[in-house]
Amino acid sequence: MAESVKTEIDLSQYPHINKGLDGIIAFSSRKSFIDGQKGELIYDGYSIETLAENATFEEVCFLLWHDRLPNQQELDELNKKMQKARSLPEPVLQYIRNTSASAEPMSVLRTGVSMLGDFYETGKKNGPDGWVDKAITIAAKMPTIIAAFDRIRNDKEPVSPLSDKNTAHNFLYMLNGEHPGEQAAKTMDLCLILHAEHGMNASTFTSRTICATESDMFSAITGAIGALKGPLHGGANQAVMNMLLEIEEQDADPVEFVKERLANKEKIMGFGHRVYKTMDPRARILRSMSKQLSEETGHVELYNWSEAILETMKSEKNIDPNVDFFSATVYYSMGIKPDLYTCIFSMSRVSGWTGHYIEQAENNRLIRPRALYIGEKNQDWVPVEER
Amino acid sequence: MAESVKTEIDLSQYPHINKGLDGIIAFSSRKSFIDGQKGELIYDGYSIETLAENATFEEVCFLLWHDRLPNQQELDELNKKMQKARSLPEPVLQYIRNTSASAEPMSVLRTGVSMLGDFYETGKKNGPDGWVDKAITIAAKMPTIIAAFDRIRNDKEPVSPLSDKNTAHNFLYMLNGEHPGEQAAKTMDLCLILHAEHGMNASTFTSRTICATESDMFSAITGAIGALKGPLHGGANQAVMNMLLEIEEQDADPVEFVKERLANKEKIMGFGHRVYKTMDPRARILRSMSKQLSEETGHVELYNWSEAILETMKSEKNIDPNVDFFSATVYYSMGIKPDLYTCIFSMSRVSGWTGHYIEQAENNRLIRPRALYIGEKNQDWVPVEER
Repeated sequence: MAESVKTEIDLSQYPHINKGLDGIIAFSSRKSFIDGQKGELIYDGYSIETLAENATFEEVCFLLWHDRLPNQQELDELNKKMQKARSLPEPVLQYIRNTSASAEPMSVLRTGVSMLGDFYETGKKNGPDGWVDKAITIAAKMPTIIAAFDRIRNDKEPVSPLSDKNTAHNFLYMLNGEHPGEQAAKTMDLCLILHAEHGMNASTFTSRTICATESDMFSAITGAIGALKGPLHGGANQAVMNMLLEIEEQDADPVEFVKERLANKEKIMGFGHRVYKTMDPRARILRSMSKQLSEETGHVELYNWSEAILETMKSEKNIDPNVDFFSATVYYSMGIKPDLYTCIFSMSRVSGWTGHYIEQAENNRLIRPRALYIGEKNQDWVPVEER
Repeated sequence: MAESVKTEIDLSQYPHINKGLDGIIAFSSRKSFIDGQKGELIYDGYSIETLAENATFEEVCFLLWHDRLPNQQELDELNKKMQKARSLPEPVLQYIRNTSASAEPMSVLRTGVSMLGDFYETGKKNGPDGWVDKAITIAAKMPTIIAAFDRIRNDKEPVSPLSDKNTAHNFLYMLNGEHPGEQAAKTMDLCLILHAEHGMNASTFTSRTICATESDMFSAITGAIGALKGPLHGGANQAVMNMLLEIEEQDADPVEFVKERLANKEKIMGFGHRVYKTMDPRARILRSMSKQLSEETGHVELYNWSEAILETMKSEKNIDPNVDFFSATVYYSMGIKPDLYTCIFSMSRVSGWTGHYIEQAENNRLIRPRALYIGEKNQDWVPVEER
């Protein structure tokens, strides 16, 4: 029934069409700064290295929501609120039980977050305090949704969240049904910090665009999850892992595998970045973390393959790995299935999405570019039987 | 806990920041053309007057999905597919039964559409035929979700869709549990045609932005519903109706009511439009429809108030009504609750949202403007106990 557009349009006729909005500055923001030449990433004033060394994910959430670090009392209060907010309304849990076990985890996460909106006041005029409370609600419950779905699709009972411990520890606990080791919990916390915020990517932009209609935060984050779900945005570390598993399955030599792919002009996932011209600072941090963790969990082989691939890509193509490259082996070492990796990305990036929502709401303007009409005008009606 | 940003930024320093992306042309599109000076609206080559007089909503859907009108066989096939696709997967119906009866209808619609994504293959590479099939699925099931929720929140059993009849007839049937009169069904069909498409508004832009990550159509439409939910976008006809009901409740004279509001510099909903400098062509069409219907349904008073308000606004402020002004009384005359009006807008606009999704997917580029960083850099870490 369908057919594509018949007339090809010569877009060079319209030099003022900016597909992709490249280079158009649409916002001022305090949330993050990226210097791709230097390999520098800053969240709200603090370099990613400083945050990775010193902060917890909850502290980073506070930073992105308030544009400053919390004092002890504020941090304690936030931790307490997050711990209280982790469990799900019963209908959300029922949905996760009832839905298709073959559903994509990102689809279930999108639906679960959307459904949370049924249970909270969403009036636009609730101001910064209300926004932060909603951000806590969403950020606290996303890991619970992901873990519950993964257990239920594997015929296991969901595990209730702990009344203490941080987001990273709770997520691994609810996923695996047992407390994570100290190193695993620390690594997960680090991964959440490293993916929290990264400028005006497509999902963050979606969150701001939805916010700008004065719609509620549940709508904005649901839309952002939908945008991150796209393979051009959030799917890269899953693709890296699938490549490593393919090497394992084929019992292949990773260096030969990569060289062959390059010879066939195939893309190697996890390398290169639109912004960074040197090694992504997050990849640098994850690289050493990955080494440590793989030794502890007995996945040294995967780490060694990663290093061999990295060296090959550097010598053959002079391209550096990005954050996705090492996060793949890190998650795998912790026993997490590859189709959950984009969900983990979401439960980290929700801190940035909600931070940008608040920043947009504080100084709002409806976001609406234009389209150039290239169709016909004033076509005469032809009755259906004469078409 | 929350506090707003401390330092005010003087945006005049950054004249290149385009908040709202006003005037930036981001797309070429065949979907619609608006001439605000002339009061002209075209969908895919055909004026809105031509479509209102001759087309059905299903024909408009085909037009927006294929950029041409269907022949008889194609239209029959589409009608059959829509009729077959109306019922909901059982878990979606269970969700509607289980969720809070006080949930906002737009929140339930957003969740219901997102949940549909759990039941369909969402691979990106399924091409135009796959996209149109998904558009049919979503467009056919949205009225069923809305009607089921409205009945369940009123302690009534949901009504199964008919295996024949069009979208407009089915929606009224499922909502009210009885067949609509001919005039009511025809008016609803007309309303669906009039709201189907309207250039690069915020929800349509959201649909394209999510599509551009190569995410699936369920994600895009879920995001678009979230954007339309915002009061700056989709809530105007509900606000018009609330004003009319306030006049009724206060037993007020509508002309005096409006004059008093104007004297207090309050906004009168349903008047003026960013684009149209003359009467919105959709308002012109709905105006005569509204008169006829109000006579048939015994709501002549509401129609007369509308006319009185219109005249007052014209003589006092020289502002014309927009599409929302008359659609409010039309929906009310048909017995539809005001908090469902934005949902009806959605079940019409989904044709445009999905049309734009297909157009974006056929010629894609990731959409990502930039943000100017206005925060600090290289802040030193201060331990939490010293903050």
